[in-house]
Amino acid sequence: MTTAGRRSKIGLSPGTVLYTGTKKDLPVTASLFSAERREFIELDIKNLQESLDKYQKPVWININGLHDIEVIKQVGEYFSLHSLVLEDIVSPHQRPKIEEYPSYMYIVVKMLNYRESTNTVLTEQVSIILGKDYVLSFQEEPGDVFDSVRNRLRSGKIIHRGMTYLAYALIDSIVDYYFLILEELSEDLEELEENLITDPQINDMHSIHNLKREVIYLRKSIWPLREIVKNLQQKSDLLDNEVNVYFRDVYDHIIQVMDHIETFREMLSSMLDIYLTSASNRMNEIMKVLTFIATIFIPLSFIVGVYGMNFKYMPELDWKWGYFAVWGCMIAVVSTMLWFFKKKKWI
Amino acid sequence: MTTAGRRSKIGLSPGTVLYTGTKKDLPVTASLFSAERREFIELDIKNLQESLDKYQKPVWININGLHDIEVIKQVGEYFSLHSLVLEDIVSPHQRPKIEEYPSYMYIVVKMLNYRESTNTVLTEQVSIILGKDYVLSFQEEPGDVFDSVRNRLRSGKIIHRGMTYLAYALIDSIVDYYFLILEELSEDLEELEENLITDPQINDMHSIHNLKREVIYLRKSIWPLREIVKNLQQKSDLLDNEVNVYFRDVYDHIIQVMDHIETFREMLSSMLDIYLTSASNRMNEIMKVLTFIATIFIPLSFIVGVYGMNFKYMPELDWKWGYFAVWGCMIAVVSTMLWFFKKKKWI
Amino acid sequence: MTTAGRRSKIGLSPGTVLYTGTKKDLPVTASLFSAERREFIELDIKNLQESLDKYQKPVWININGLHDIEVIKQVGEYFSLHSLVLEDIVSPHQRPKIEEYPSYMYIVVKMLNYRESTNTVLTEQVSIILGKDYVLSFQEEPGDVFDSVRNRLRSGKIIHRGMTYLAYALIDSIVDYYFLILEELSEDLEELEENLITDPQINDMHSIHNLKREVIYLRKSIWPLREIVKNLQQKSDLLDNEVNVYFRDVYDHIIQVMDHIETFREMLSSMLDIYLTSASNRMNEIMKVLTFIATIFIPLSFIVGVYGMNFKYMPELDWKWGYFAVWGCMIAVVSTMLWFFKKKKWI
Amino acid sequence: MTTAGRRSKIGLSPGTVLYTGTKKDLPVTASLFSAERREFIELDIKNLQESLDKYQKPVWININGLHDIEVIKQVGEYFSLHSLVLEDIVSPHQRPKIEEYPSYMYIVVKMLNYRESTNTVLTEQVSIILGKDYVLSFQEEPGDVFDSVRNRLRSGKIIHRGMTYLAYALIDSIVDYYFLILEELSEDLEELEENLITDPQINDMHSIHNLKREVIYLRKSIWPLREIVKNLQQKSDLLDNEVNVYFRDVYDHIIQVMDHIETFREMLSSMLDIYLTSASNRMNEIMKVLTFIATIFIPLSFIVGVYGMNFKYMPELDWKWGYFAVWGCMIAVVSTMLWFFKKKKWI
Amino acid sequence: MTTAGRRSKIGLSPGTVLYTGTKKDLPVTASLFSAERREFIELDIKNLQESLDKYQKPVWININGLHDIEVIKQVGEYFSLHSLVLEDIVSPHQRPKIEEYPSYMYIVVKMLNYRESTNTVLTEQVSIILGKDYVLSFQEEPGDVFDSVRNRLRSGKIIHRGMTYLAYALIDSIVDYYFLILEELSEDLEELEENLITDPQINDMHSIHNLKREVIYLRKSIWPLREIVKNLQQKSDLLDNEVNVYFRDVYDHIIQVMDHIETFREMLSSMLDIYLTSASNRMNEIMKVLTFIATIFIPLSFIVGVYGMNFKYMPELDWKWGYFAVWGCMIAVVSTMLWFFKKKKWI
Repeated sequence: MTTAGRRSKIGLSPGTVLYTGTKKDLPVTASLFSAERREFIELDIKNLQESLDKYQKPVWININGLHDIEVIKQVGEYFSLHSLVLEDIVSPHQRPKIEEYPSYMYIVVKMLNYRESTNTVLTEQVSIILGKDYVLSFQEEPGDVFDSVRNRLRSGKIIHRGMTYLAYALIDSIVDYYFLILEELSEDLEELEENLITDPQINDMHSIHNLKREVIYLRKSIWPLREIVKNLQQKSDLLDNEVNVYFRDVYDHIIQVMDHIETFREMLSSMLDIYLTSASNRMNEIMKVLTFIATIFIPLSFIVGVYGMNFKYMPELDWKWGYFAVWGCMIAVVSTMLWFFKKKKWI
Repeated sequence: MTTAGRRSKIGLSPGTVLYTGTKKDLPVTASLFSAERREFIELDIKNLQESLDKYQKPVWININGLHDIEVIKQVGEYFSLHSLVLEDIVSPHQRPKIEEYPSYMYIVVKMLNYRESTNTVLTEQVSIILGKDYVLSFQEEPGDVFDSVRNRLRSGKIIHRGMTYLAYALIDSIVDYYFLILEELSEDLEELEENLITDPQINDMHSIHNLKREVIYLRKSIWPLREIVKNLQQKSDLLDNEVNVYFRDVYDHIIQVMDHIETFREMLSSMLDIYLTSASNRMNEIMKVLTFIATIFIPLSFIVGVYGMNFKYMPELDWKWGYFAVWGCMIAVVSTMLWFFKKKKWI
Repeated sequence: MTTAGRRSKIGLSPGTVLYTGTKKDLPVTASLFSAERREFIELDIKNLQESLDKYQKPVWININGLHDIEVIKQVGEYFSLHSLVLEDIVSPHQRPKIEEYPSYMYIVVKMLNYRESTNTVLTEQVSIILGKDYVLSFQEEPGDVFDSVRNRLRSGKIIHRGMTYLAYALIDSIVDYYFLILEELSEDLEELEENLITDPQINDMHSIHNLKREVIYLRKSIWPLREIVKNLQQKSDLLDNEVNVYFRDVYDHIIQVMDHIETFREMLSSMLDIYLTSASNRMNEIMKVLTFIATIFIPLSFIVGVYGMNFKYMPELDWKWGYFAVWGCMIAVVSTMLWFFKKKKWI
Repeated sequence: MTTAGRRSKIGLSPGTVLYTGTKKDLPVTASLFSAERREFIELDIKNLQESLDKYQKPVWININGLHDIEVIKQVGEYFSLHSLVLEDIVSPHQRPKIEEYPSYMYIVVKMLNYRESTNTVLTEQVSIILGKDYVLSFQEEPGDVFDSVRNRLRSGKIIHRGMTYLAYALIDSIVDYYFLILEELSEDLEELEENLITDPQINDMHSIHNLKREVIYLRKSIWPLREIVKNLQQKSDLLDNEVNVYFRDVYDHIIQVMDHIETFREMLSSMLDIYLTSASNRMNEIMKVLTFIATIFIPLSFIVGVYGMNFKYMPELDWKWGYFAVWGCMIAVVSTMLWFFKKKKWI
Repeated sequence: MTTAGRRSKIGLSPGTVLYTGTKKDLPVTASLFSAERREFIELDIKNLQESLDKYQKPVWININGLHDIEVIKQVGEYFSLHSLVLEDIVSPHQRPKIEEYPSYMYIVVKMLNYRESTNTVLTEQVSIILGKDYVLSFQEEPGDVFDSVRNRLRSGKIIHRGMTYLAYALIDSIVDYYFLILEELSEDLEELEENLITDPQINDMHSIHNLKREVIYLRKSIWPLREIVKNLQQKSDLLDNEVNVYFRDVYDHIIQVMDHIETFREMLSSMLDIYLTSASNRMNEIMKVLTFIATIFIPLSFIVGVYGMNFKYMPELDWKWGYFAVWGCMIAVVSTMLWFFKKKKWI
């Protein structure tokens, strides 16, 4: 659950910058893209402010790792970010949101990753600060979905369209990646559906529950993004008509993602019904066969019981063909029962 | 699932025109309706722009097949369409939507088809570009629901009412066709309902699930259309009061379609209840009969068991009519039980 | 299902007047109320326009039967109605709606009827055209709920209040009749509830399903009326403060009807729960009794089986009172079991 | 159901004053509070208008009993009330509502009463007419929740704050009484919950259904009140800032009541789940024990059956200790089975 | 249930200050923070107004214990609070709300506490009065979540930012504490989920019900807070841009809390499904094994019954190896049945 780590913050003054995620051993790195030089430069996180002074804006600074509070604080000071923003950057359980500050916008987005081995979706919080002539992005760990943006930056394609377009490009990469997650989930779902129809198992119930949890969690991560992008679109509408069209496109993609997620939810609830019906049908089928066997043999046992009685005077016992007559009688009983069950379409 | 094909696009710059549908072997064709000549002309897709230059506007150009990117790009260039529009035209998993660009409107609609053989609904994305003096329509494959529009165009009925009316006519044909789909679904639903009441089978459960999926999918395809047509109506309201009335009519039809779909959904959920109840009732009926047989013979078996005991001194065994008395006793027991069950209304 | 009949219209140009309801053999009749003469006059449907010329406005013309397209077309021409309006009048599966045209308003309402014999609700579409000095009403078949309006017209009460008031009176009659339907449904519901508690049957399940269908259908027919009357109220607000009060009253009644329908829905879903519980309880009760019988006799059968063995040396067999001791033992076993079941409150 | 009584009104002209509630034998009474004299005076309902002329306004007139149409009509005439208002006053199945007329406001509220004996909630419609210098209140029968208002009036506390404050005081008394109803329902709910956990009975199912019905009905009676009071608050906002605060307080109470009702609904649906689970658990527990007994004795019966066979050559039968060996064998079988069931945690 | 205690108020005039919570034996205490002296001073509740006169504003006065009406009244008089406000302060079952009065704002918030011993969430109503130069807070009992605020006040950090910021700090402390509650609930939920998958018990059903109740109750306590803070943010927007940012942060936290609560609700309903499935699966597993034993022995009992018959002429009985042949025959029957069940995957 994502509430973990909040406990350590209770009682602290608001704006206290304290990392509440899981501590990482990985080193913190910071890279800067200089529009002037068209290349990415690794920054010295020890003397971050001096390093930053060297490069002319516009710049994109990407920081991997949030556990070194000093780095975050230096960046915050350099770009005069509000202490509440810094607090949120290092709290990796934020809800996706957009907050407007006088000289910049603070955007929180969830970057999703699908881990094949466990069939689970991992989330990583990405904080984006969109200033007039800079974009800052903060990630929890190295490895992201921004490589295509980096390539396009290197080939000089993005930066001349302005910082809002760069922010758009980052968000677009993240949203595009959601479709991959959906595809994986969709495959899991189809496999599960196949299983449910052919051979329902008790484990399928847990798979449905787990998928449901994934879907609930995904929705929680993606749903607020809708409003963020709507907001950005409206803002960019005032400034820059061209970027506006692109944000409309991202908005459209998010709605598509949400549509799929809603469909998944409805599918899962329908699959639960199928599972329950199949499981109960399978049980019923077993019970039916077993009950048939019992039902057929019980009258027969009664018949043989009758001729096991020790009465002195039982005329049938003395008949020559008595024993065989009983067999005939029993075969007749069984035949009648089978015919009756067949007529009733029970077998 | 409709997320397929998105994977190949991850990492590409937005506006990259790449066909993400299933590749088709069918040739790409383009036809043009010239208002001047009142006839349909097959265009040479090799030299599309030259072909287009030959005809005076207003024109309607219909393109079948999206996998030849070159054709799409040439059309895009000729009519100066935005690269994001071209990207969406060749991505056949768009959500129905309307996007306004300075000199044209981009409309995405889902054309539905019912395949009798598999009882499934097929969708095909139709992109419509409504410009000042042209309408472009893009379909994935040949075969559509526009024949009545073509006939009315040939007889000179539509084109003088303007391009907005032509766009209306196309959308109206598509929406009219939805009613056919609804009728087919409605027949499937009634047949299923009939089955459920007379003779519920495990397959009916899967039929309900499949119909539910169809209905969820239909709703997803049609629901956004509502806002599109509302939007078009409001726009046409400013321009042209006459077309406005027609869009109001289409809007009305879409609401009707949505009403039916909602009713289908409620029916299906009610039918699931019926299925579950009928199935459990049928099982109970079987169990009841079988249990009756067992219940009646078990006491009888006990009685005959008693007189199968080998005690030296058992007075009844020596009675002359002992054997027949036991039979009388057993008949009495069975009668009492049957009378009791009858009184309780269990049989 | 109400989608029937639409199929014949696919491919036709919008505004084509084609009757899509079930063809009737009844003759088409038209009657006119002349405000001047204060009486109802049967019109000659052959020469409708000539007949109409004879009477001064204001008039109310009521047409029964929609299958004679010619009559509808003549009326349409005489009062210059839009072709889309005529198309909707003869399509008896419209959603209730209001459409404003420059010189008149087009209102579609559903008139409900309860058929005692089959416990079903029948709907008939009533189209009302409210012009400046005329009201037209179109019904599918003779027989309606307007008799009280006719009586009040004959006694000269309505017409001096204007055409909007007349339209109000017609709609009010229809809405008042809804309460009768609700009362019938309410009685069916109470009867069903009574049955469910005293003696649940498998048929009750189908009754619940049918009532649910009726209620879904009713809601679909009545829900849009709410907005129509709201709309009319707002319009009449501008013109005529007095009629406004009456429309507010009708609006109020519709909300009341919708409240009842929502209550019916909730009741039905609660009754389904009761049915399922009662049915399962009844089954459980049977199974319990039968299982008790089996459970009591199985140990006894074992005991008598023991003394049916043919071992040479079985001391009990030679005891004088062995047989009676076994009986005592069996009675003790049965008593213990009954006491145990009683203690556990199972019987 | 509350639709009863409407049938008699179908076909009547709107504004016809006809009592549609259950006819009462109680006499109709009318009392007047004169602000001047600070006392309540019983009015002569025969000559109501003359009686009214005697007293100076401001006045509060309360009428108990609606079946004497003449009294209502006289009051209506005296204060020039609209005929639709009079019609609604005597139709005791109105939805709570507020209607503004030029010189007065018409408010319908539901007064609730809890009848201990049957655990049901009774409703009585209270109509309040708020004029400039008078307040009229109409109740179906004597006995109400206004005694505290009467006492405060007698001690001269309310009337100087104006008629709106008096109307507020009446509505406040009614809403305060709702909390009593909630408390009673809450007690019933807790008792039922207690029963469900300790000893679920089939009757509890009906209790849940009945409570659900009560809650649905309560919500229907109270929900519209929210908007009425909001409306009154907004109106009083313009006139009189002080009363506004009091209406805000009532509004707050209604929201609190609605919150409780929603909680009751959710609790009831959760209790239904508990009932179903408990009932099925109890049944399963019984079946399990009975099945155990059967399962243990069936193999034993087989064993004793073996040695009841009459084969000439059965070596065991001749062994001296054969009989006791069989007993040992059977004890071993039973022990193994019990150990196995214990290991599986089935007993 | 929280409706308790209201009964004593029915019939009282609005604005009557009467404590409706559970009476406490603890003494009422009042402490004052003087901005001037930067320290907390215990006030003499006997002569409250004199004590208050000694200190210069701005001040924060915190009162613990609401059952001494005199204290509340003195405070009310001193700060001229409306009688309805005083009434609400001492009614500890208020809904969280904000009410604006000319010279102050009245805010009701729920302070939550988790009692480890019973796994229940306790609520305490905190009333905050935000005046121009004072903040009053009223709690039911000593012990709260404001210690961090007190520490920051002592170190001179909060007071210079104004009274709105102080109110923010109090609300922020309360909301921060909600995360602790969520964490506890989340742990309970995970533990329960673990139990359900490994070993479902009937008690888990009650745990689910209890957690559901907690969650319903939590939501009811927190949901209205959202609007309160939104409201405060909008108000502070006009006055003071800096505090606005902080209220936005609190708003954000509340949305996060609500998100978690919604997730808990969905999880709980999914866990109920798991419980029901697991319980029914477990029962089925038992029934299956027991039924197998019965099914296998019933045909065998029949066979041995056959040779227990006493017919004079039964050829098999005289065969030398008859007895052993029967054993062989029975082993064959059992093997066939086991093979069949295995093939069907029933065992």
